[in-house]
Amino acid sequence: MKKILSFDIGGTKIAYAVINDKGEFFTKVSKQSTPKTAEGIAALLRETISKYEQEIDGVAISTAGAVNNANTGIINNPGNLPEGYGQTDFQGLSSKPVFVENDANSAGWAEYVLGAAKGMRNTVVLTLGTGVGAGIIIDGCLLKGKSGGAGEMHFKIDCQHRMCTCGLEDCLEAYVSGNGLAAEARISFADKNATSYDVIEGLKNNNPAAREAFDRWQGHLLDGLIAVGNLFDPEIVVLSGSLAQFVEYEKLEKIANERILTEPFKLREAVFKNDAGMLGAAMLMFHKNNTLK
Amino acid sequence: MKKILSFDIGGTKIAYAVINDKGEFFTKVSKQSTPKTAEGIAALLRETISKYEQEIDGVAISTAGAVNNANTGIINNPGNLPEGYGQTDFQGLSSKPVFVENDANSAGWAEYVLGAAKGMRNTVVLTLGTGVGAGIIIDGCLLKGKSGGAGEMHFKIDCQHRMCTCGLEDCLEAYVSGNGLAAEARISFADKNATSYDVIEGLKNNNPAAREAFDRWQGHLLDGLIAVGNLFDPEIVVLSGSLAQFVEYEKLEKIANERILTEPFKLREAVFKNDAGMLGAAMLMFHKNNTLK
Repeated sequence: MKKILSFDIGGTKIAYAVINDKGEFFTKVSKQSTPKTAEGIAALLRETISKYEQEIDGVAISTAGAVNNANTGIINNPGNLPEGYGQTDFQGLSSKPVFVENDANSAGWAEYVLGAAKGMRNTVVLTLGTGVGAGIIIDGCLLKGKSGGAGEMHFKIDCQHRMCTCGLEDCLEAYVSGNGLAAEARISFADKNATSYDVIEGLKNNNPAAREAFDRWQGHLLDGLIAVGNLFDPEIVVLSGSLAQFVEYEKLEKIANERILTEPFKLREAVFKNDAGMLGAAMLMFHKNNTLK
Repeated sequence: MKKILSFDIGGTKIAYAVINDKGEFFTKVSKQSTPKTAEGIAALLRETISKYEQEIDGVAISTAGAVNNANTGIINNPGNLPEGYGQTDFQGLSSKPVFVENDANSAGWAEYVLGAAKGMRNTVVLTLGTGVGAGIIIDGCLLKGKSGGAGEMHFKIDCQHRMCTCGLEDCLEAYVSGNGLAAEARISFADKNATSYDVIEGLKNNNPAAREAFDRWQGHLLDGLIAVGNLFDPEIVVLSGSLAQFVEYEKLEKIANERILTEPFKLREAVFKNDAGMLGAAMLMFHKNNTLK
């Protein structure tokens, strides 16, 4: 049975585990803080790989940032990782094959092959965290576009002149991310220090201002679901990330399906949590690289 | 050399011609008014097919409405065609194979195989007519979704409570269609009878109100281009339909590419005009049906 050492590289943590082609974890997941420099990250990866290199058949890397279509490197430096990280020579880190994919794409693939969207060849997985990521599966293939950067959830969805991390105003990401929920919190609590946690806590206590903030946030999410429903006609939309657990799935599924022109889709919470990126990158490497199967 | 009798079925006209697998037209394009009943349309198709049936290898139909993934029939009755048309048994019209595809998808495929997007495997073709249609090519395949209805340009892009033909408010279609330009005309001319033609005429005479209306319309189009750029990372976006000729391509291409997170795309006018649907449906039938090649 073939095994892959799979990493998930984020702005705050780097996690890794050894995974086989059935998606079984051979080791527990280890986590370390992300080093502050690109060289530090490369050194950590190299050191970890060297420990496992004899027993593995390849290295998979789920990472922040858009990844090229050859799955060898990053196109642009991700904002939450140190300068120079985008130029990392991933293949140079190991004598075994190295496969790189974006973290939202990897998480989406995990849900498609083993999770909430298992076997559904047209799937949209939205990761609702600090920002918003998307992994989009079209007829069983990951949507990558000409360069690998497809699936950016940056398009105008409202008109409140709300700044987005991409430099534009009013993108979907600015409304349905954790940052978006925090913005609703500041409005409803009339408190510039209010956070998304205040909304979640307030919901538990039936606080009307929290409910109002959450409903507005979920209204924007509904607009996003209508967009991906009409554009992609998916069998399922899966929500993952820290905010996914609070969504009212039945309600949103019903309303969205009443409003789209395309046929109804399912709306479900993701099965995989923090390990989705690692798992998906490994499974995608097995899928794409026949010699590893 | 194999030949297909190809139809384009719209709300006002039905056009047809015989086309070979190189996209060459063997007959001139004939046009007739669309009959007012579903039975009338079927009778016209059957009569026309019977004239050509001996010399052709198949029948292709480019039609309004979403078409299923088997390319045999329509999912929902299109609003601009008579009741019952959506249930037409297209295969029953001929003893030769019959292939059906949506008109915007067909037009998109024509641009991809023979037109402005030739050879560009990630292409978005937007048809800016009375409404807005999209034909989206992803890695050389038409985006159809689970049921065939993908590519609906219905998602919230602004906040003016502008009614869309789909029943929602503020969809992209409501802003970048001919109806959208007419809405801008009514605002800028302060005249509830102003039309999109008034804007186009006014532009020729440097009328400031016309310029203002057109600039707002084009601003919405820019938002739409940013959306498809970020979502699909295409090599090219092609604009077709009656409004495509008025767009400032260089300017919009430059601004959109400055604002997207993905790699730059080309923005170009479509090569094929009214015959795009017929041509694309025929070429798609040749592509999908190996026995016809």
